[in-house]
Amino acid sequence: MNGAQALLHTLQTSGVDICFANPGTSEMHLVQAIGQSDGMRAVLCLFEGVVSGAADGYARMADKPAATLLHLGSGFSNSMANQHNARRAGVPMVNIVGDHATYHLQYDAPLTSDLLGHVHLSSAWTGVAQSADHLSQLGAEAVSMSYANGGQITTVIAPADCSWDPAGEPAKAMAAPPAEPVEEALLEQAVQLLGNRKRTGLLLGGKALRSEALELLGRIAAATGATLLCETFPARLQRGVGRVPVQRIPYFAEQALTFLQSYEQLILVDSKAPVAFFAYPGKASWLASESCQMMTLSKHGQALLPALNALADRLQAPAEPAQRQTPMSLPLKQGPLSVDAIGRSLAALLPDQAIVSDEGNTSGLGIYAHCMGAAAHDWLTLTGGAIGQGLPLALGASLACPERKVLALQADGSAMYTTQALWSMVREQTDITVVLLNNSSYAILNVELARVGAGTPNDKTLSMLDLSNPVIDWTSIARGMGMQADRANTCEEFHSLLQEAMAQRGPRLIEAMIPTPRA
Amino acid sequence: MNGAQALLHTLQTSGVDICFANPGTSEMHLVQAIGQSDGMRAVLCLFEGVVSGAADGYARMADKPAATLLHLGSGFSNSMANQHNARRAGVPMVNIVGDHATYHLQYDAPLTSDLLGHVHLSSAWTGVAQSADHLSQLGAEAVSMSYANGGQITTVIAPADCSWDPAGEPAKAMAAPPAEPVEEALLEQAVQLLGNRKRTGLLLGGKALRSEALELLGRIAAATGATLLCETFPARLQRGVGRVPVQRIPYFAEQALTFLQSYEQLILVDSKAPVAFFAYPGKASWLASESCQMMTLSKHGQALLPALNALADRLQAPAEPAQRQTPMSLPLKQGPLSVDAIGRSLAALLPDQAIVSDEGNTSGLGIYAHCMGAAAHDWLTLTGGAIGQGLPLALGASLACPERKVLALQADGSAMYTTQALWSMVREQTDITVVLLNNSSYAILNVELARVGAGTPNDKTLSMLDLSNPVIDWTSIARGMGMQADRANTCEEFHSLLQEAMAQRGPRLIEAMIPTPRA
Repeated sequence: MNGAQALLHTLQTSGVDICFANPGTSEMHLVQAIGQSDGMRAVLCLFEGVVSGAADGYARMADKPAATLLHLGSGFSNSMANQHNARRAGVPMVNIVGDHATYHLQYDAPLTSDLLGHVHLSSAWTGVAQSADHLSQLGAEAVSMSYANGGQITTVIAPADCSWDPAGEPAKAMAAPPAEPVEEALLEQAVQLLGNRKRTGLLLGGKALRSEALELLGRIAAATGATLLCETFPARLQRGVGRVPVQRIPYFAEQALTFLQSYEQLILVDSKAPVAFFAYPGKASWLASESCQMMTLSKHGQALLPALNALADRLQAPAEPAQRQTPMSLPLKQGPLSVDAIGRSLAALLPDQAIVSDEGNTSGLGIYAHCMGAAAHDWLTLTGGAIGQGLPLALGASLACPERKVLALQADGSAMYTTQALWSMVREQTDITVVLLNNSSYAILNVELARVGAGTPNDKTLSMLDLSNPVIDWTSIARGMGMQADRANTCEEFHSLLQEAMAQRGPRLIEAMIPTPRA
Repeated sequence: MNGAQALLHTLQTSGVDICFANPGTSEMHLVQAIGQSDGMRAVLCLFEGVVSGAADGYARMADKPAATLLHLGSGFSNSMANQHNARRAGVPMVNIVGDHATYHLQYDAPLTSDLLGHVHLSSAWTGVAQSADHLSQLGAEAVSMSYANGGQITTVIAPADCSWDPAGEPAKAMAAPPAEPVEEALLEQAVQLLGNRKRTGLLLGGKALRSEALELLGRIAAATGATLLCETFPARLQRGVGRVPVQRIPYFAEQALTFLQSYEQLILVDSKAPVAFFAYPGKASWLASESCQMMTLSKHGQALLPALNALADRLQAPAEPAQRQTPMSLPLKQGPLSVDAIGRSLAALLPDQAIVSDEGNTSGLGIYAHCMGAAAHDWLTLTGGAIGQGLPLALGASLACPERKVLALQADGSAMYTTQALWSMVREQTDITVVLLNNSSYAILNVELARVGAGTPNDKTLSMLDLSNPVIDWTSIARGMGMQADRANTCEEFHSLLQEAMAQRGPRLIEAMIPTPRA
């Protein structure tokens, strides 16, 4: 047994059974060890941003880490944008990054760079293997530590010689660090605030947006009159018919300021204080009113359900939540396709337990609203704002939940960053429908250009936000990667294609031609 | 005038007249300033790896920096793989990275990350703007410093408020640091070594591979019997008919060891000592023979031509180089297409002054050899080993030299990393022909797997090196990005398509179907 084989053995006994891989020469022994393993599913991705985005999507749905396999500093750097999103999502992830053999680093060969410098940027915990035995020991620690703080990124640097040198017994799996309880004093403080008759928002994020927590929070709301608010970009929100609904804070700062203005108190539950996504000249970055009192009840990774149970008990909450979502969908539209029409179709057709990977950006906001009363589903959003998340995330979510339909709601500009995910969706025969929202524009930037007050744009400025010259033909691109793809120009065409896609299994893409926004 | 406008003014007076851009909200004032400028060409790229790769290609051909426009840490991270290649190429590049407004950073908004930590990984010089006036001052310094050490990456971090705040007079352009002369003692030492009748190689890299330097080196070789060797991955090698030929060190370490074994002395001219690209169990990393004496005559950025002139004078070198390349091409092949046939066609058809961006990887090696006797051309290679360079590099090279035909010799696996470059090639109406070498495989990894001695691979292992399930249809992908594309299955088809492409201007792709290697 060599170091690579020992590491693989340890990862598997630690419960890691899928690896998203984009390997190079320094990882060949790791590739061979994966090939020899029975229990480790190997998913080849054709770009590292797909690797990390898929590992994020997997973790959001499986609540356990996937492994990634990456190649040196440059491979790692390609994965970093989606690692940033995963870091913001607070999910577990275990990166295995190959490095040059320990004795080879001194020669500064062409691919050499400051690997550790790269890794520290995204990883909460890092281990650098010193030997073949050390490599599998680090694997055990990395899996354990990936569960710390509610889920975080850990990285093992695997020099090639540590993979190919002989190893002894593989390291044993290590227990995950236990979740810390919510402090008694905070529970008591929350009881006080919830009883003082001020206008109170329970601002929810992270694991507070799962159905079980939402049930408890809905009962607490019923007992106290507090409103359930949701962070703007949740990692995973369980919603739809039968679920306890939440009000999501708007993306645009002006709207968020208005939305939050009347709250005298905000109780943060696995969430951060609301701040503007970007700064704008003369506008506030802090979104709550200045006089709003804020407390953090529970941080990501703390034992949330016991705390919410205790809180519900102390408040003598009723058995039923204040609200429960009922079915709701608006009549279908006809004629030229629009975001509104797409939202209506989705609300009507989304199957029970669907997973939506939403990187619809400007277009996604309206569709999200439409789907409020769709069948129960999970909604995953762009947690860190680094675009190119949506397709990889859908891939990983589908592999975590192969029996559930995944719908990737994908803006065209963002799709271009990690198009390679389509290929892996086909290879793995995932049950994913991509709705590619083609408006031939970085629409969000046209909006932002006006909001930052940079003056009236001329044609040259606008050309830098425009994707229409040449027009991108997403149907061709998807077919080029082996995916069934069709284009919808009208509401009727879209609805019919979506109906077909929801009724069948397998990967496919619907290119939804929607109007180009004008600044 | 705001900070963004002052910066643009300074960049232009400093001689920077092209900007490869992938902006976001925090760069909107910079986008507007570019839009308002007459002299700054704006090239929108749909992924940051295209931005940095294009800036590299531009600099290799123009010998001056392009600006890049990038969005925060995550945008920067997407550009880092090709920045790594540019760093290894030793070219000037000026990155402008937007950041959150200075006062907004404290809120840790979703896109916030350790931007400076990212920037330091690739940049030899970094400036963080503190005010609108400081921003244009940093622009002047960044351009100047990009010329230091023969060409390096500089980065200006531009917080959004430094772009939108009012600025005074734009900063004035600053002179580039002067090139240091080669030390007299080293010239003398070289004269000694070149006269001692030992077997001597002049190992050339960087600017020593330009035709003017090669003329002098060819004369020095004629005077001394030394052999002209070329580093394995040169940034830009001027070769072909009429040029002084060099022998390139092979990529595979075993071959390189054999190739270098007989040299008793190596004189490094703008080059590093030859080392293996990767380590392999039981094989040497240091490629020269143990007894080989090595000296560095000139480092990247030193005043090379005066030194070579002086050396030629002291050696009383003849007026003509030892060798000058004569025309050479082998008869065309027929039947199923092969790398050999592609090489023969290229050798026959490459127009005078063509630029070849070679990311052909395993396939590229044979084609390089074939083109030795083609018309005079520039050959650009993958300097840092971070794949995904070829298409962006071709884009930048074409914009630097719009009158010259650019040929992108592109392996399929690597092409997948930065496919988005095809779109910008079309938008900018570049004169680029992409020869997409489709062997449906990470062929190099099949070779490397055997070389690292990881044992006989099974199907699961091989699947991680294989691109054939599903087969990628590059013609569809290219057409999806608005590019004319055709597929060649036979030698005749390929030759006819290439002939047509070489005779016309404009962007197009030829998908060359070549055999899949088997491990």
